[in-house]
Amino acid sequence: MIKVVAKQYIKDGSLEEFLPVAKALVEETNKKDEGCLKYEMYQDLSDPLVVTVIEEWESQEVLDKHMKAKHFTDAMPKIGALCEKSADINIYKKLF
Amino acid sequence: MIKVVAKQYIKDGSLEEFLPVAKALVEETNKKDEGCLKYEMYQDLSDPLVVTVIEEWESQEVLDKHMKAKHFTDAMPKIGALCEKSADINIYKKLF
Repeated sequence: MIKVVAKQYIKDGSLEEFLPVAKALVEETNKKDEGCLKYEMYQDLSDPLVVTVIEEWESQEVLDKHMKAKHFTDAMPKIGALCEKSADINIYKKLF
Repeated sequence: MIKVVAKQYIKDGSLEEFLPVAKALVEETNKKDEGCLKYEMYQDLSDPLVVTVIEEWESQEVLDKHMKAKHFTDAMPKIGALCEKSADINIYKKLF
């Protein structure tokens, strides 16, 4: 199992525009992407402009497929334009 | 539900000393802390010195109790001494 944590920094004033794009990506991913165990979006309680996707994938292979899927490649430029800086992305394996 | 992501930066050469302390904390927390839904530790695939705890708690209240528990307060100074800098900690609510 591969775990991904992608912390995104939304531009001030862009959250309202960001949320529907992000929601559609979460819904499409959960519906379409084989091997997706979990794909959820979270908002920081002390800074609402920090929005983080926490994902679980069966393997690196299905994660790679996801990153080539249309719903992902369509969403990324839109999300990128609404972000302050690039996301902090970590890809993890479970220790314990 | 409250989600916590705590990304820790281990000092080079300290990972071996860090892992048993971290493992004991994970085990004690899962065993003892009421309202703990998930408490897992992950290691970054490209940088083994980045080790992140991903937690789920029923409420802020039980999370606060955890942070006063002996197994947590005992572990923190040991872990702190083995880290390069302070952890990046985010406390989240789920969006979708």
